[in-house]
Amino acid sequence: MTQYKTDFEWTRQQFDLPEGMIYLNGNSLGPMPRASVPAMTSFLNDEWRTELIKGWNTKDWFMQTNTLGDRIGRLIGAPAGSTVVSDTLSIKVFQAVAAGMAMVPDRKVILSDNGNFPTDLYMVEGLIKLKDAGYELRTPDPEDVMDHIIEDVGVVMLTEVDYRTGRRHDMKAIIDKAHALGAVVVWDLAHSAGAVPVDVGGCDVDFAVGCTYKYLNGGPGAPAFIHVAPRLLDTVEPFLSGWYGHEAPFAFDTAFRPMPGKIERMRIGTPSIASFALLSVALDIWDNVDMDELQTRSAELCALFISEIEARCPGLDLVTPREPRKRGSHVSFAFEHGYACMQALIADNVIGDFRAPNVMRFGITPLFVNEADIMGAVDKLEKILKEERWKNAQFQKRSLVT
Amino acid sequence: MTQYKTDFEWTRQQFDLPEGMIYLNGNSLGPMPRASVPAMTSFLNDEWRTELIKGWNTKDWFMQTNTLGDRIGRLIGAPAGSTVVSDTLSIKVFQAVAAGMAMVPDRKVILSDNGNFPTDLYMVEGLIKLKDAGYELRTPDPEDVMDHIIEDVGVVMLTEVDYRTGRRHDMKAIIDKAHALGAVVVWDLAHSAGAVPVDVGGCDVDFAVGCTYKYLNGGPGAPAFIHVAPRLLDTVEPFLSGWYGHEAPFAFDTAFRPMPGKIERMRIGTPSIASFALLSVALDIWDNVDMDELQTRSAELCALFISEIEARCPGLDLVTPREPRKRGSHVSFAFEHGYACMQALIADNVIGDFRAPNVMRFGITPLFVNEADIMGAVDKLEKILKEERWKNAQFQKRSLVT
Repeated sequence: MTQYKTDFEWTRQQFDLPEGMIYLNGNSLGPMPRASVPAMTSFLNDEWRTELIKGWNTKDWFMQTNTLGDRIGRLIGAPAGSTVVSDTLSIKVFQAVAAGMAMVPDRKVILSDNGNFPTDLYMVEGLIKLKDAGYELRTPDPEDVMDHIIEDVGVVMLTEVDYRTGRRHDMKAIIDKAHALGAVVVWDLAHSAGAVPVDVGGCDVDFAVGCTYKYLNGGPGAPAFIHVAPRLLDTVEPFLSGWYGHEAPFAFDTAFRPMPGKIERMRIGTPSIASFALLSVALDIWDNVDMDELQTRSAELCALFISEIEARCPGLDLVTPREPRKRGSHVSFAFEHGYACMQALIADNVIGDFRAPNVMRFGITPLFVNEADIMGAVDKLEKILKEERWKNAQFQKRSLVT
Repeated sequence: MTQYKTDFEWTRQQFDLPEGMIYLNGNSLGPMPRASVPAMTSFLNDEWRTELIKGWNTKDWFMQTNTLGDRIGRLIGAPAGSTVVSDTLSIKVFQAVAAGMAMVPDRKVILSDNGNFPTDLYMVEGLIKLKDAGYELRTPDPEDVMDHIIEDVGVVMLTEVDYRTGRRHDMKAIIDKAHALGAVVVWDLAHSAGAVPVDVGGCDVDFAVGCTYKYLNGGPGAPAFIHVAPRLLDTVEPFLSGWYGHEAPFAFDTAFRPMPGKIERMRIGTPSIASFALLSVALDIWDNVDMDELQTRSAELCALFISEIEARCPGLDLVTPREPRKRGSHVSFAFEHGYACMQALIADNVIGDFRAPNVMRFGITPLFVNEADIMGAVDKLEKILKEERWKNAQFQKRSLVT
């Protein structure tokens, strides 16, 4: 067994999963760190209750966007001062793509792919409608993206790791080609940050955005982040230009002046400080994790999961790339009765999820998943399949969140 | 003394203000309800920790945007189903104005006033820059707004209660004139919601937005809300069109289809559910408050405050309208040495705030402020002025948040 400097037994102990549950959905909503309750109680009693308005000064609420951003920055290879936390991922996608479009004003094409997470496409659709100036969103199949990077493309907006299949784009190759042709690139790292090592600095990413409620364990609806290449910070237009991005936010000037040369300019409105308290303790765990080791550990667990499923669960077809470097940290199988089968598995306290039309998805998150979880999950799945339990009507009934 | 059905002693008891503090800043950041810690602990332990991803179904996280929105709706006269909570006020201003502009495509003027809260102006400035189609933002003095509502104005965007002076616009008169001339109106209720009775339904408001961390006591950076007139819900363009506003958010279609005829279409990305837990208990208090009585009580306390200040604090000039119906629920005085004087007052544990260039601002929030607070605050202020304590260098040094 591989020896790690990162103590994955310790990281597992930082979470308090419900007794008997095998949680393979940390790629969708991360579990709660044990430190969340004391941290939040302390925030409420010792900050909001006690300091009230003074907390903006005495507890440094105002700059937590940046201190938290820098801690995420380490996980994605971003230099200090180039990442801030706030808003939702949808908003950050909009902000990044709008800024990218303005950098190449003569080009009217935004290139994405049809496997991108829908909200990214929706936000660009809304942006194009708002601009009302002849822009076009192209969405070829993910494997054809490289061929679609041509001279008329202004902004390439992609999610690095496919939310269904786990397939990972070749970030460096795409950026190199896009830059060579004069395009700007926006990366959504929703399924990358905390899943795989990312090197936004080394790859010369223009913009990167992501969320903190999946692998980073910030809680449901935890804030998003945005990274902008330092070389762009003097000129990037925030467009969603709120007081939190102003050069002098407390001067109450009537004209907007973006914070010069700093990532602060991409901040918008007043962020939820309570949500920062939760994110901060979640990042306390991440501060102790080496991302390369995490990837090795993920590969180890994924290999076990895939081999066990393929040996014991006939009918399930792997849709995730077999090569570890070509995927994120979740593994998906196509199965005709995937929805009902996943409901049966959830009823058995193994939590994965389902993505239309037929994908059973499992997050293999080394911070708290180990070999025993993998074997336990496959044992139960094997049994469900043998008993054809997915035929049960109760498992076929659709609920809101699948 | 006026008899109220609303029990303002009970509402006061719902907060746990620091011993000895007189808090006259609930118009900037409301204090913490006593129920916040148990509610948040329950959310963390019984929802996030236990339910994990299933919480979206079992704890109805997905629709809290709407249930909380409707509870705020009661306070502003909005019918059920026309208000949702999410994002920041800056984002909601952008979304409302962008939607308004699209309703009057031939008009290129957005009218506001130069007393509006700066972030509202900044967001429109960014929107105009993004649209890049010859739009213009006009910002006359607040008292001249009515005269500036003319045929070329497409959207009138105003904050009802001025964040510095407390002066209240005549919402009904402005809307009537704007509508008569074919303009759309967006109201920012940041200093109105929970401060004064508002009747967005009766006034036929097109859009209203606001925040929940001031009078509503949702905590620092608590989420914003947006109300859209029901008559517009079939056609309003969200523009910031995220998955949370989609007709079938879990179908993961690649094309955006706004939720037909429903306020859900103005939702954008995944909101912070933790921040909803705090807002919910804060609204539990508001559920017991009659807004007309609140205004009467506010008028009573403001009258006492104004008369005591004017009798005992020479040099301070009232900048807030004397007539209760013409103001919100804060009172401001101009004073040459206002900044240092406010710092001295804060050092004495009376918390108000300062707004450039010379405004000392005091939130008179009947949920937890009473006559004893008013008298205690004026006693201390009188003493500071007599002793000219504002001359002390320590009080003249500027800090980040003023």
